[in-house]
Amino acid sequence: MQPTIEESFVRYVKEYQEMCGSYVHVYQKPPTPLEFLRTSVHPNRPAIIKGAFDDWPARTKWTNQYLRSTMGKVPITVAITPNGYADAVTLDKITGKEYFAMPYEKVMPFDRFIDTIEGKENSPNKHYISLQNGSLPAEFSPLEKDVAPHIDWCSEALGKQPDAVNFWFGDSGSTTSLHKDPYENCYAVIRGEKTFVLFPPSEYYCMHESIYPGAVYEPNSTTGSLELVPIHPPTKTPWIPVDPLSPDYTRFPRFRHAKPLIITVQEGDMLYLPALWFHHVLQNGDQGVIAINYWYDMEYTNSLFPTMGLFRDLVAGVLDGTNLHSSDSDKNSDSE
Amino acid sequence: MQPTIEESFVRYVKEYQEMCGSYVHVYQKPPTPLEFLRTSVHPNRPAIIKGAFDDWPARTKWTNQYLRSTMGKVPITVAITPNGYADAVTLDKITGKEYFAMPYEKVMPFDRFIDTIEGKENSPNKHYISLQNGSLPAEFSPLEKDVAPHIDWCSEALGKQPDAVNFWFGDSGSTTSLHKDPYENCYAVIRGEKTFVLFPPSEYYCMHESIYPGAVYEPNSTTGSLELVPIHPPTKTPWIPVDPLSPDYTRFPRFRHAKPLIITVQEGDMLYLPALWFHHVLQNGDQGVIAINYWYDMEYTNSLFPTMGLFRDLVAGVLDGTNLHSSDSDKNSDSE
Repeated sequence: MQPTIEESFVRYVKEYQEMCGSYVHVYQKPPTPLEFLRTSVHPNRPAIIKGAFDDWPARTKWTNQYLRSTMGKVPITVAITPNGYADAVTLDKITGKEYFAMPYEKVMPFDRFIDTIEGKENSPNKHYISLQNGSLPAEFSPLEKDVAPHIDWCSEALGKQPDAVNFWFGDSGSTTSLHKDPYENCYAVIRGEKTFVLFPPSEYYCMHESIYPGAVYEPNSTTGSLELVPIHPPTKTPWIPVDPLSPDYTRFPRFRHAKPLIITVQEGDMLYLPALWFHHVLQNGDQGVIAINYWYDMEYTNSLFPTMGLFRDLVAGVLDGTNLHSSDSDKNSDSE
Repeated sequence: MQPTIEESFVRYVKEYQEMCGSYVHVYQKPPTPLEFLRTSVHPNRPAIIKGAFDDWPARTKWTNQYLRSTMGKVPITVAITPNGYADAVTLDKITGKEYFAMPYEKVMPFDRFIDTIEGKENSPNKHYISLQNGSLPAEFSPLEKDVAPHIDWCSEALGKQPDAVNFWFGDSGSTTSLHKDPYENCYAVIRGEKTFVLFPPSEYYCMHESIYPGAVYEPNSTTGSLELVPIHPPTKTPWIPVDPLSPDYTRFPRFRHAKPLIITVQEGDMLYLPALWFHHVLQNGDQGVIAINYWYDMEYTNSLFPTMGLFRDLVAGVLDGTNLHSSDSDKNSDSE
């Protein structure tokens, strides 16, 4: 019996799982560039790095009081949603349709954002500082001096500087939905803890990636409640509709073959999240969870990137009849 | 229009070609371990290294006269074929069938092998020292002291010692047919020159890999001529039947999409041949061509290796109906 396409992908998913297991390397101190490249980047496997930023002033200084006094009324952009899911496939109860839902982006003084995190604002919505456009040097420049401008052993390993450094501030009400980025990611948790639910790129087949029309949350002009407003002319975004913590196997049967690697990154630790790994991110911590992440462009000649395009053609195109190939979700800039 | 499997693979082959072009990095001196890992191994791209073994005694000492005096009558294994193709898909003119043809392996005194290379033996056959079982420390141990036991910058980059070091000695009459190995390969040309016709792993689709029954050349008991003798019980070896220098596009239409990278490695230069690159090797040089190569195990968690298994299932299994997956050609030990 010859395998079908489905059987071939299932076999591939299982073989990778058997070969690599659920092992996550823990560096007890920052690695040398060679060690990091050899042990983590080249094999494309996640790792935890202990003591990677013990010397940053941010580690001890970034209390809400300090942040208020340093940032004060500086205007910053906040992603606001009714349910804590910005950039996620969302069922619109009014129309009964599924959209790729983007947050209402509101510019507000930083101290007002802190008020919402501390529960001093009576809002039904979830607020998250999660803009991925190099937000640290842009909107949060008063805080830049408290962290390293780049991760020296990572920059030397990859032979480049980070493409973007982002400032994250949110709470347990906000979740980042399952997706991947074409970046090597060094993710430093400064306050609180973040839990990453990870899947290797080999499990693309299991993800049921599909195309969704875009919609943005906007306040209703009468009630002020956030409502999804479809974008015109319609946009098409490939995204993963599965909730990995409560998967609907009837709608997403291939997800049965996926095997999550769940890593909780504690305050003071750094996660190396390898390029093109699927990740769903939760957070937890009193008075807000803060992180800084460094995005480095991935290596595009290595087989991983072009192979992901082939998977899209084969799984979405051939099996599902959805042409995702020419879309540009990989370069989506609103993702963790 | 959604793509078919064939169209998906053709697109993938072309995208990799457009992304990576035909650029080959040339190191003017041996790289640092980090530079080598970052520039060549992680991107899985071939490179030439100049001056990698200027200090080896072999560079100046390995004349035929010196080799005769050092090795003398030490028995060594020689691969003998009537046509210069050991380990190649071969049409047996007597039966009209195609076989994976393996050489007649003959143990002879080293000085007799030199006689054949120098044309002093009147043989219709081609002789090649090309055993890939770590032949340098085994049969050629008297020569070991003239070369490095490993390539220090490569060993440090990969964090391991070579799995095998092999001694090659042949002439322009012998060719290595298109295949791939699951090894990172540092290939030092000590005498003469070798031309590598290379194709990236992304071009697996173009290769028309198929399964062939094995046969071994054996001397006819009456005439002494080498004849193919099928192995019993029959073996099944997946191999590539295309001659990349004169491809039969009628039989192998997918090969039209392949794009060779042709690299001639001069005496004194080293080739880094990345894991799983397809290669066809020619050689040229008066009085014989000599090389030493270092095989390092490839990284198995990186997506490249498991992905090649998926390609086999999809191309050979789904498209061609040939189940190659469980065969073990990747671990074949008789390849350059």
